[in-house]
Amino acid sequence: MDTKLRRSIVDLERRETPQLIGSDKVEGTPVYQPDGNRAGQIERVMIDKLSGKVAYAVMSFGGFLGVGEDYYPLPWSLLTYNPALGGYEVNIGEEQLKGAPKFGKSQSWDWASPASGKLVFDHYGLPPYWEMP
Amino acid sequence: MDTKLRRSIVDLERRETPQLIGSDKVEGTPVYQPDGNRAGQIERVMIDKLSGKVAYAVMSFGGFLGVGEDYYPLPWSLLTYNPALGGYEVNIGEEQLKGAPKFGKSQSWDWASPASGKLVFDHYGLPPYWEMP
Repeated sequence: MDTKLRRSIVDLERRETPQLIGSDKVEGTPVYQPDGNRAGQIERVMIDKLSGKVAYAVMSFGGFLGVGEDYYPLPWSLLTYNPALGGYEVNIGEEQLKGAPKFGKSQSWDWASPASGKLVFDHYGLPPYWEMP
Repeated sequence: MDTKLRRSIVDLERRETPQLIGSDKVEGTPVYQPDGNRAGQIERVMIDKLSGKVAYAVMSFGGFLGVGEDYYPLPWSLLTYNPALGGYEVNIGEEQLKGAPKFGKSQSWDWASPASGKLVFDHYGLPPYWEMP
């Protein structure tokens, strides 16, 4: 096999397996709503330093060249990868997304506060990450 | 405050809090041994898709312009951030690192297999991530 091709396949293997995925592969991955409309793209995942658990995936949406962008903290369990779409599918409706907790480009978000955490997980009807096994 | 400065501070807040850290901030962060020698740098973190737990941090070391680089899967709990060093400190000796499980740039690593996982955690004398609470 062509070395370059082999390299890229191996590189892919290094970034993802059926069970694991590399953070650098998650970043930039598009997110779609069930109706196929693009909801945004994953900006980063926020990791709980102590437990090593993913606290949220941060989805960015809207804006132009990064101006006026909004950031949505999403529970990791909400994201299901759809190979056909080449992105994550979030099973949430237009209205639920419209009302979802978000913050603007120049706003900060108190990641550390359990209150903001609970706000996010309550909105999606899921237990907060620190309560998950 | 100067808007640009404020923006960058806010951006920083978005990437890290005392409790959480953004994957894009972890990537590229240098890793140091207790003696202060640079062990390498974090390439990515591998996330368990189902549980949302960080399975490993992958540290790259050696090589030139990415050629001949080695990759070390490290248990997340092994990394302690040291603000004075501006990087992670791994409390492992030269010998332990030399003998550590690694894979080359053009090799693949069977992330999915529990055997390879156990190999890594056994080497560092830690319970595998799937057994951690």
